[in-house]
Amino acid sequence: MTVESTSGATASETAGKTVDAFHYGAFHVVQPHGQGHRSGSDAMLLAALVPDGAKGRLADLGAGCGAAGIAVASRVPGLSVTLVERSPEMAGFARQSIGLDVNRHLRSRLELVEADVELTGKARIAAGLQDTVFDHVIMNPPFNHPADRKTPDALKAEAHAMSIDMFDRWLRTANAIARPGGQLSLIARPQSVAEIIDACGNRFGGLHITMVHPHRQASATRLLLTGIKGSRARLEIRRPLFMHETGETRFTPLVADLNNGRTFIAR
Amino acid sequence: MTVESTSGATASETAGKTVDAFHYGAFHVVQPHGQGHRSGSDAMLLAALVPDGAKGRLADLGAGCGAAGIAVASRVPGLSVTLVERSPEMAGFARQSIGLDVNRHLRSRLELVEADVELTGKARIAAGLQDTVFDHVIMNPPFNHPADRKTPDALKAEAHAMSIDMFDRWLRTANAIARPGGQLSLIARPQSVAEIIDACGNRFGGLHITMVHPHRQASATRLLLTGIKGSRARLEIRRPLFMHETGETRFTPLVADLNNGRTFIAR
Repeated sequence: MTVESTSGATASETAGKTVDAFHYGAFHVVQPHGQGHRSGSDAMLLAALVPDGAKGRLADLGAGCGAAGIAVASRVPGLSVTLVERSPEMAGFARQSIGLDVNRHLRSRLELVEADVELTGKARIAAGLQDTVFDHVIMNPPFNHPADRKTPDALKAEAHAMSIDMFDRWLRTANAIARPGGQLSLIARPQSVAEIIDACGNRFGGLHITMVHPHRQASATRLLLTGIKGSRARLEIRRPLFMHETGETRFTPLVADLNNGRTFIAR
Repeated sequence: MTVESTSGATASETAGKTVDAFHYGAFHVVQPHGQGHRSGSDAMLLAALVPDGAKGRLADLGAGCGAAGIAVASRVPGLSVTLVERSPEMAGFARQSIGLDVNRHLRSRLELVEADVELTGKARIAAGLQDTVFDHVIMNPPFNHPADRKTPDALKAEAHAMSIDMFDRWLRTANAIARPGGQLSLIARPQSVAEIIDACGNRFGGLHITMVHPHRQASATRLLLTGIKGSRARLEIRRPLFMHETGETRFTPLVADLNNGRTFIAR
């Protein structure tokens, strides 16, 4: 069976999982079917925050099945990507994604670390997340969406459960593993804007925030943020991003390009 | 001499001050000329956050020469407006604005309180700012713009000097004088977004934030915020406001209407 996925890609379904094509088939991701968090535009927009010319190592914190990190690896040949995922189930999907034959051209630049992003000190290092070795850190931290409270879906609940001070703990890890001058990129709900800025604190500066609106008349549903470790530059609220023209279901041309790895959001 | 003002209004200049027409002459404001903070779009956008049908009392904290508060009085006949200004010089301009013959139709709904917004407790009440009596509180708090550091203009420096925790102190006063369910409206720099949300804390909720961009491709230069005292509703980043079409100097039709009191930004 073939299922249409969020990015206009196609998916082959097998028992309990799908294999979804992204970037018009440039890479594929194994995802749980009908349960758990499924990746789509959020992961692709997050990936679009990393510039084409990036080099070195990237960590995808809370990688889930790996869609965002693998999307960066697919578009940016200069980067090696470490997917970091705590949930054994989701890490299992990420491992299958890395192992897909259709992804073999990327495999030498992909690795999986099964670890809790919130580990600290020696436990974090022992898990494979060394100090100041990453040129880029990306994250789509869990968030607790009101709609999710109505579902008894444990996998999805785990992906979306936001703990108190979570942003502070995730950004502490991002700061620890990023090299000086390294770039943080994240996607989150606009409701968390103050919490995220506060958690960036003295760790990441030169924050660039892009509000993502479903269309020109609608309130924002996501925010994209990049920052530079150690920068003292002031915050910018960048031009907004509109997913659709008002009244249309197709993505705007820019969002379609971002979703499909044809461009990125430059700082 | 006639001087073109920011709102497309005209100004009559006398020694050291100008009398500026706003809302196509619906009211006038006396402002310092060539020194101090001069009101324009910022004051008119702030005024545009108060709905047409509002009733009762409004406090304009840090009112300067009174442009924002008088603009609300002019557009919203149900409101009586209290201008609150600490600086004797600016309060003098506000007093002259209230006293202008061309503003006599508004005079019965305008008053001036010469007081520091940061007063607390009995000192605040003694100055004329009673607890929970205001249906609306508006503010354009001072901000420290890098360009101002180059000028030796003391009046402007006073208007723009941002003290540590200023937002917390201003919102403490706003919260104290607002009735339960009363509306806070403010304009500020987008760089202060986290500080402002944090200062709203448990005082004002249901925050609606509108980012104001010079044009569609540019980063935001102002933010507009409204909130309701005691509300627990979640924050919304509303559709953005673009001052100009890209490459044009005229205001967009919506901004021209907001500048001229022909419409308001509904919650």
